[in-house]
Amino acid sequence: MARWAVAAVVAALATRGGAEEGMWLYNAPPLERLAHEHGATPTPEWLLHLQRSSVRFSSGGSGAFVSADGLVITNHHVASGCLQKLSSPTRDLFHDGFAAATRDDEIACHDLELNVLVSIEDVTDRVKRAVPPDLPPVEAFAARRAVMATIEAESLAATGHRSDVVTLYQGGLFHLYRSKKYTDVRLVFAPEQQIAFFGGDADNFEFPRFNLDVCFLRAYENGAPARVDHHLTWARSPIGEGDLVFVSGHPGHTDRGDTIAELRSLRDLWLPLDLEHLNRLEALFGAYASEGPEERRQASADLFGVQNGRKARQGILAGLLDPRIVAARQTAESQARARLERALDSEPSPYLRIEEAQEAIDAVARRYRVLEAATGFNSAYFANARTILRAVEERAKPDGERLREYRDSNRASLELRLFSPEPLYDALETAKLADSLTHLAAVLGADDPLVVAVLDGQPPRARAASLVAGTRLGRRAGAAADDDRRRALVAGGIEAVRSSDDPMLALARLIDDEARAVRATVDAANEVKQQAHGDIARERFAREGAASYPDATFTLRLAYGTVRGIGVAGEPGHVSAFTTYAGLFARASAKRETPPFDLPPRWRELRPKLEADGAFLRTPFNFISTADIIGGNSGSPVVNRAGELVGVIFDGNIDSLILDVAYDDTRARAVAVDAGGIVAALERVYGADALVAELCGSHEPPRIP
Amino acid sequence: MARWAVAAVVAALATRGGAEEGMWLYNAPPLERLAHEHGATPTPEWLLHLQRSSVRFSSGGSGAFVSADGLVITNHHVASGCLQKLSSPTRDLFHDGFAAATRDDEIACHDLELNVLVSIEDVTDRVKRAVPPDLPPVEAFAARRAVMATIEAESLAATGHRSDVVTLYQGGLFHLYRSKKYTDVRLVFAPEQQIAFFGGDADNFEFPRFNLDVCFLRAYENGAPARVDHHLTWARSPIGEGDLVFVSGHPGHTDRGDTIAELRSLRDLWLPLDLEHLNRLEALFGAYASEGPEERRQASADLFGVQNGRKARQGILAGLLDPRIVAARQTAESQARARLERALDSEPSPYLRIEEAQEAIDAVARRYRVLEAATGFNSAYFANARTILRAVEERAKPDGERLREYRDSNRASLELRLFSPEPLYDALETAKLADSLTHLAAVLGADDPLVVAVLDGQPPRARAASLVAGTRLGRRAGAAADDDRRRALVAGGIEAVRSSDDPMLALARLIDDEARAVRATVDAANEVKQQAHGDIARERFAREGAASYPDATFTLRLAYGTVRGIGVAGEPGHVSAFTTYAGLFARASAKRETPPFDLPPRWRELRPKLEADGAFLRTPFNFISTADIIGGNSGSPVVNRAGELVGVIFDGNIDSLILDVAYDDTRARAVAVDAGGIVAALERVYGADALVAELCGSHEPPRIP
Repeated sequence: MARWAVAAVVAALATRGGAEEGMWLYNAPPLERLAHEHGATPTPEWLLHLQRSSVRFSSGGSGAFVSADGLVITNHHVASGCLQKLSSPTRDLFHDGFAAATRDDEIACHDLELNVLVSIEDVTDRVKRAVPPDLPPVEAFAARRAVMATIEAESLAATGHRSDVVTLYQGGLFHLYRSKKYTDVRLVFAPEQQIAFFGGDADNFEFPRFNLDVCFLRAYENGAPARVDHHLTWARSPIGEGDLVFVSGHPGHTDRGDTIAELRSLRDLWLPLDLEHLNRLEALFGAYASEGPEERRQASADLFGVQNGRKARQGILAGLLDPRIVAARQTAESQARARLERALDSEPSPYLRIEEAQEAIDAVARRYRVLEAATGFNSAYFANARTILRAVEERAKPDGERLREYRDSNRASLELRLFSPEPLYDALETAKLADSLTHLAAVLGADDPLVVAVLDGQPPRARAASLVAGTRLGRRAGAAADDDRRRALVAGGIEAVRSSDDPMLALARLIDDEARAVRATVDAANEVKQQAHGDIARERFAREGAASYPDATFTLRLAYGTVRGIGVAGEPGHVSAFTTYAGLFARASAKRETPPFDLPPRWRELRPKLEADGAFLRTPFNFISTADIIGGNSGSPVVNRAGELVGVIFDGNIDSLILDVAYDDTRARAVAVDAGGIVAALERVYGADALVAELCGSHEPPRIP
Repeated sequence: MARWAVAAVVAALATRGGAEEGMWLYNAPPLERLAHEHGATPTPEWLLHLQRSSVRFSSGGSGAFVSADGLVITNHHVASGCLQKLSSPTRDLFHDGFAAATRDDEIACHDLELNVLVSIEDVTDRVKRAVPPDLPPVEAFAARRAVMATIEAESLAATGHRSDVVTLYQGGLFHLYRSKKYTDVRLVFAPEQQIAFFGGDADNFEFPRFNLDVCFLRAYENGAPARVDHHLTWARSPIGEGDLVFVSGHPGHTDRGDTIAELRSLRDLWLPLDLEHLNRLEALFGAYASEGPEERRQASADLFGVQNGRKARQGILAGLLDPRIVAARQTAESQARARLERALDSEPSPYLRIEEAQEAIDAVARRYRVLEAATGFNSAYFANARTILRAVEERAKPDGERLREYRDSNRASLELRLFSPEPLYDALETAKLADSLTHLAAVLGADDPLVVAVLDGQPPRARAASLVAGTRLGRRAGAAADDDRRRALVAGGIEAVRSSDDPMLALARLIDDEARAVRATVDAANEVKQQAHGDIARERFAREGAASYPDATFTLRLAYGTVRGIGVAGEPGHVSAFTTYAGLFARASAKRETPPFDLPPRWRELRPKLEADGAFLRTPFNFISTADIIGGNSGSPVVNRAGELVGVIFDGNIDSLILDVAYDDTRARAVAVDAGGIVAALERVYGADALVAELCGSHEPPRIP
């Protein structure tokens, strides 16, 4: 089976694009393909409705409005950070779940921002005009940054909407995305993590699955539930095998437009470094969690995130280590490269420029990661310290000259996170920081002058403990409100920040010159790559026209696919497209209900009753489709032709991880929680009748006979 | 507290040697210090009795004879490999424990060898004579290897004992150790892992502790229990705070004689690489274990070993990253170096030669690890393939020219392991091999010709699966006995091995030239280091005389110390030297009995009865002393002045890990299971009356009033 699957991927790669490939821009939807392949002709209204019902989680993830009162559905694991931050030693929402009895009981989340895409404007010409072709990389980078900041600031002033110029096709196009922003978001309902993530790390990225990976939040405006013009209605009838479905969400990142040089760097350097980091954190959080129940509670969401990230990257790396996949990409690139280099004649090849720029980046990869990506300073307190330091320094500069995340148009979003009331646990922060300072010493060498200065004569553990104990740049669990100096320091400006004796701020100051320097090196090389990719993209547009889509960039995209099992029905190895609640109970029993295959207490208690109900047992729980998704699509609504909600994406299977590099519909599948299954659980297990009524409105919830 | 402790370490380092420092050779015991400090004067008979009662586990670890019928006590975690190998899907000895009802029920362990040191002979002069001072490193290495093999072969022929020439003082001395060997070893009693390792990774290397980390085995000869002339008797009265104790065991490795250049390499390169590897394995085994109860059973012992190794190395690294510790070593070395270089005048400094040799080793560190240390080929099947390949190739050479582990005198021990009947699980072997092949590609780069040849056109997972499925070089769980081709291939010799189409053997052949080449580079550099260390040692002997001890080398050593708590009694932070069973129950309750703080079913059931018994609750369970120990001492007997067994070492606390580099008695402690506590558990919890009678012989077991 595995060999056959790979052969199909290779074929798909060679022809560039399987049948249902694509993470399409809403302003360039695949209308022809949909009409041709599925006889489907989405109208502009249909598209706008889906677009404006779709929700982006600034923390990473997707969702959708599902009532006119601002009710939002997403995944439990997308909301896990919120759940963790709202929990305490006496209230573990992440583990135990939550259901608001009334709207008054809905709990405000910390530092969560939701965005709804309002409009898209192509600003490519304006950006390109501002960057003359012969400018050296460092100046070109500055010029582009400046014009993007100007466009964003103008748009924010004109519309009040969050405004982001996004880079598409690695620099081939620039679009201005305007989004309505919600920053008062409250928790409505979450199941227990045990049923949301039944099967844990073992079943993650697998199918069949049995996960109630959903969470309901509500957007508020002016202290009242937000009245939204667009929301998805719950489907009146269930989706079935072979049906066309659409997925609207925010795929985070793909590498399909990368050159071979970039893929090699990803494969041999960046992914191994990522995995090394994640393995390290997994051991760290695992050890911390084993200290006791409260420590386990504090580290749970982090541990989940780390394991999830580890398995995802292992999947991408496994794909890149398949020699046939890289060989197929090599063949395709050789053809495109020859064509382009003939056309450009004597100019330096864009492919060569990318290769050289990648080498320059790779040469500082480890240094970049520990200093600028701050894997050497792993603490929320340090992150706050750096943000405060840079915020006041950058704001003293003209908007267009700042590090991009400090532009005026991003200020509100940045401060929402910076001033998060999330409680920090000093024992956990100390463990993270001690571990990362140890890593810093390994990467730079313990005798490196910067490391010597950072450790200040102490071993990492003692140094971390004194930094964490001494800082006041966060909300320390159990501390008085005035212990937190974040707002005062930002308000005090550059003078206050430079003269502060907060030890974490002193540490941020100590390393900032070197961190900025290595970032500048990487930014300049990325500029070279971006210009070269622009040259490649121009040739591609000339050849392919608009029948294409850019790599994922955590902006809203439309994907479509078919509900379809894996393999051939009736043959060995066939996997059906749907699982049911009967399957959940069967799997729990097969694994003797040992963790991570244990059911939450509520489910264990109700099990005899639920198992006596054939209709419940047959209810679809999870299903798969061929839609083209990737990380960031978690929580994306799945809709039918009528635009009604039929499911919520929560995972891709292990074969889908290669979608980072290339689409394949042989075995790769998007995994969703079935809308009917969600309602069945809300009614039968949780008795959440008010929620069901709000979701299903005037019509009856869908039922499986 | 931490700062004070460190200051004391630094002071100890500066003066070279705290009061109770030392892992002493049995042929050079610290008689003067014992007499002077403790008024203790061990006689030659006393020493010989303790020496010959001490047992070395070839798998790594220590133990002691505790009856005339060959009964051996060690740690549960030293025997964990045996317990794992004897387990099956239907019998989990590691988790559930074991008690043989009669001697007929004792179960033979797989591939376990026990050694008892019979005699030590100084062969330094003969070794040095065989290696003229001006020989180039590669030839010097060969000459030394040859003379050592000859001495060993002669000794084996003359005495029939296992004979090993061991290198002491990094090459300053060479001693011939003769050991009696037991290879028929049977399992008598093991408690549940849950009580042996109560507190798990969280409590590992900590104190207070509550662990019944013991296991009883029996040595057999000619099918009957071995009659041994020396065994330790159970102490008649309990040990107490302030008492002098002796520890006889096999500390594995220390770095106290390393130069600063070597310590830097350890700190900045080798320990970080070790930790990266262990983190990787921890994620791997953790993920495998989460697949279900049977997978958890298969991976349990590996997971324990990896977590234990990770925490130990983190402790050593933390010590090396304390700038004051390295600075103190630097000061001491500068003085010794200046003295030595003045004496040697114009000759190249031994310190400089070591530094250069270390650089040469470090330059190939990653390559050495993946190819020769085989971290790129992590499978028991691969280990067997390589051993078979090299065994037949090396045996074609004269004994003295072979890779050291293939010398004739080691043949029986090597084959005991090579032909182990331990069952191998293909899913686990595939997971390990796929992970390590991925690591190989990251280290060498996926386009490296050797990697391309190794992967043979497949991604790592598929390649690993086909290698594991195709090989016949091990006992595959559930397979017929004739599936296993190990003995046939070794018997077939070079022709059979070179022409075999076993895929794992083909893989071993494919990489062997490059693996041997990188080993040769490392061996040559190590030879340079060894000669230089010899020069340094000569100067040290001239200065210090015999009042010294060499770095640990997994040979039998005598340590001594005082039973002593940490800190000052009555002051905050004071830790008493003893824990009790009352403390065990209190800690389980404080942690809500969540794993790893849950008690085994037997203990849970008996708890009400045990808690009603004040005498049992007050029984000492674990205790600490200042004896100088390190990894490898696990299972070492602790004896009182009378030479009676009072405990069994099972751990050092976190502060003891720096003992790798330097002794300190401020906070570093050796942790032991109390002999009285062992008997109390055997009687009251396990009803193991026959075992207690055998241990305590004619006298009553010790009791706490």
